[in-house]
Amino acid sequence: MADTIFRKIIDGGIPAHKVYEDERVLAFLDIGPLSQGHTLVIPKEPAETLDQLSDESAAALGRVLPRICRAVMAATGTREYNVLQNNGHGAHQAVFHVHFHVIPKPNPHEGLGLSWPAHSLDQAAGSRLAERIRRALG
Amino acid sequence: MADTIFRKIIDGGIPAHKVYEDERVLAFLDIGPLSQGHTLVIPKEPAETLDQLSDESAAALGRVLPRICRAVMAATGTREYNVLQNNGHGAHQAVFHVHFHVIPKPNPHEGLGLSWPAHSLDQAAGSRLAERIRRALG
Repeated sequence: MADTIFRKIIDGGIPAHKVYEDERVLAFLDIGPLSQGHTLVIPKEPAETLDQLSDESAAALGRVLPRICRAVMAATGTREYNVLQNNGHGAHQAVFHVHFHVIPKPNPHEGLGLSWPAHSLDQAAGSRLAERIRRALG
Repeated sequence: MADTIFRKIIDGGIPAHKVYEDERVLAFLDIGPLSQGHTLVIPKEPAETLDQLSDESAAALGRVLPRICRAVMAATGTREYNVLQNNGHGAHQAVFHVHFHVIPKPNPHEGLGLSWPAHSLDQAAGSRLAERIRRALG
């Protein structure tokens, strides 16, 4: 695994505006924020994508997410927000260490912009696909 | 809290293409998918937004996310994907029961579309803001 900038922040080699830290998780301000309060929440475990992360780190990160969201919203006076986690270049991942973005959405012009090209799920195809996913979950 | 469609799916009153279920968490196919395999992962606890979710439900949901991502990607033959969780009308939340989207990104034209209007973090403002968030975290 590449020695990413996030690994250097975890190790203290690069400074960051840290907001939370425990044994498994670190949170700090994004240096390229989409809105005021844009925060990154990362596991200390070196996993490139979420599917590679251990259950234990994923549980520890999940557990603290609501607390961090409450604190970011309280400190910025925002009520609406997006939580986003990208996996792969094509899915807009830039640093190959798992990170959850907490992005306040104070108004339509700041924060995360989304486009939502939804289709309708075909019921028969959905049944077959759900069966394949259940089988993959073992 | 409103009796959302997700509550009815949890209670069995509305059918869904379920892919995973445990004591605290349910996952099923989105009926308006952005790409094949678009899956919703929800807590059984009735929280409208992530900041309202208990630590226990958030940990249980976080723990199973990597497994579900692996299974969705294996079943669809996709490698890249986004995980998204929206809070508030202005942040694109449509159903007011916490849900994490797992959205395969098979190519540039399908899956989640993002716009990323990033700014540069002012260091002094960042220091003050991080301090406010740390204080809000208690």
